Amino acid sequence: MNVSELGESGLISRISEIVNHRRNESAPAWNNLVLGIGDDAAAWYGDNSIQLATVDAMRQGVHFDLETTGWSDLGWKSLAVNLSDIAAMGGLPRYALVSLALPADTDAEAVFALYESMTELARKFDMAVVGGDIDRSPLVEVSITVFGSTRNREQPLLHRAGAKAGEKIAVTGYLGGAAGGLKMLSGHLNLDKKSTDSLRTTFLRPFPRVAEGQILVDSGVRAAIDISDGLLADLNHICKASHVSARIEAERVPVSPEVKANFSNEALELALSGGEDYELLFTASPEIIQQVEAAASCPVTIIGDVVAGGNSEVNVFGIDGSAVHTARTGWDHFPKN
Amino acid sequence: MNVSELGESGLISRISEIVNHRRNESAPAWNNLVLGIGDDAAAWYGDNSIQLATVDAMRQGVHFDLETTGWSDLGWKSLAVNLSDIAAMGGLPRYALVSLALPADTDAEAVFALYESMTELARKFDMAVVGGDIDRSPLVEVSITVFGSTRNREQPLLHRAGAKAGEKIAVTGYLGGAAGGLKMLSGHLNLDKKSTDSLRTTFLRPFPRVAEGQILVDSGVRAAIDISDGLLADLNHICKASHVSARIEAERVPVSPEVKANFSNEALELALSGGEDYELLFTASPEIIQQVEAAASCPVTIIGDVVAGGNSEVNVFGIDGSAVHTARTGWDHFPKN
Repeated sequence: MNVSELGESGLISRISEIVNHRRNESAPAWNNLVLGIGDDAAAWYGDNSIQLATVDAMRQGVHFDLETTGWSDLGWKSLAVNLSDIAAMGGLPRYALVSLALPADTDAEAVFALYESMTELARKFDMAVVGGDIDRSPLVEVSITVFGSTRNREQPLLHRAGAKAGEKIAVTGYLGGAAGGLKMLSGHLNLDKKSTDSLRTTFLRPFPRVAEGQILVDSGVRAAIDISDGLLADLNHICKASHVSARIEAERVPVSPEVKANFSNEALELALSGGEDYELLFTASPEIIQQVEAAASCPVTIIGDVVAGGNSEVNVFGIDGSAVHTARTGWDHFPKN
Repeated sequence: MNVSELGESGLISRISEIVNHRRNESAPAWNNLVLGIGDDAAAWYGDNSIQLATVDAMRQGVHFDLETTGWSDLGWKSLAVNLSDIAAMGGLPRYALVSLALPADTDAEAVFALYESMTELARKFDMAVVGGDIDRSPLVEVSITVFGSTRNREQPLLHRAGAKAGEKIAVTGYLGGAAGGLKMLSGHLNLDKKSTDSLRTTFLRPFPRVAEGQILVDSGVRAAIDISDGLLADLNHICKASHVSARIEAERVPVSPEVKANFSNEALELALSGGEDYELLFTASPEIIQQVEAAASCPVTIIGDVVAGGNSEVNVFGIDGSAVHTARTGWDHFPKN
């Protein structure tokens, strides 16, 4: 069986079994482990805080191409997607290691531009870029590992497995902008300046919701994920990990105004399945969500309900209560045939 | 100027400038940093120990091909090369994150074999594999980040910048075996069973010198590096970081017996420049080296002297005092034209 037949989640689940089979509970590393394979970041007990670590790669031809993503954007985004994972655990990013692969004829100025914007973003979060690895390769790749931590050892983590039936589902910011930005750039669409700027920024320069992750923790939220694969796919990750299902009300989904204005027919689809918005998706009681909304400087929108039972499914309903069918649920690197 | 014209070390040095330009000394991440870009691993103060982190990628067509390196070997080696970096800092490995790229038609059993051998090695060091990332890609890649620590906050690190004129240069184990193994496998050479087994193991299943790294620290060694690029190239890294030069006596270099027996003409060249032996190269007083030798379960050999001045150069001399010319000094991903 090849990995495409197994699918990405099947592959990860088998890998997780292999790794856990060789678990050695008496070793401090295993003993201190809080969360291993399967969440936004790994987590283990440090002396005075919980340590977090995550890795994400941006690969040319898979995650980006250099026509739509400039080198400077690539530097920003490849760090941002990792910070988003730390944010979604309720952590603060601290250190980054950068593994870079470059064709031998790459312009050195392009590499410097990548590092300039990456360190510009790092500085906004008081982070240090402390090392890495550079290799020759036919295609460009930036794979960043980010180390973070909670504020103290007692602070609860946000994780995928914390959702409970009866809770509301909420999301920060607007959705669909990143997918709209990709459509605009790859289709060379000529939109108005405001739309162009907004969609470009959302797609190429996402601003990780680290501050909002802290607000979630302080407000008492326990279940969260960042939207990288797409709202439906990421909500499905929460449902699977929490053994619950979800109902989304299509009308409530905060579709990006620029996406609504420019991609009317498929705006909802982009918001539900486009991915790469790097907003936080979480579940909590209405009271807790209200508290988050009051503290956050971005919109916070309730979009549906966590429900008991079912097969960890996510269903979308229209205003009249009829089911909304969606074309795809999100990104799978090894989609089943 | 493209990155090949700038060369690998020129590129890293400019990147280091860009990163340090945006340093924010008042941020705890920067404040706690012990070693950033430029050593075997990054190091920062944790609460009760120094934290270490390193990343190294194995890329198909660059670092390996699947004809000479089986999937199981790939899993072992891609973790081993990172443990070697932690060992060379005097640290103990704790956690690993694995970033994997696979063609869609990869046999799932191959991936499981990779994880089986990787976790077999991890278990020998009481480590936990705790997360990662899997992507589709035209070529296979395994990029691993290893997180380690010192035993306590006061334990000194081994680093490249600690060599002093007057010290002796020493190395653990034998050299040239990995390069000999690669020649044997890629040339389909039919050697005797003992040579075949030994060279294959040295090339494909290096055993990281974590225990020896601890002995180095306890014996009072301060300058060390692991031999990945080659003895001369890695010694050159120590010389540059320590502002010293080095004299190697060719006769003293512990060339692998199997390499001597099978590659007589080029045996010394393989030992000096072949790389990938993952032995520890270090400098210290003869008394300290004697202490290391007494404690270590592998050979420890003095091969030369650290000398003052010069242009951070490494010179090799024959038994009669004449200079030995070597074809290449080691691996550079972006060799200057």
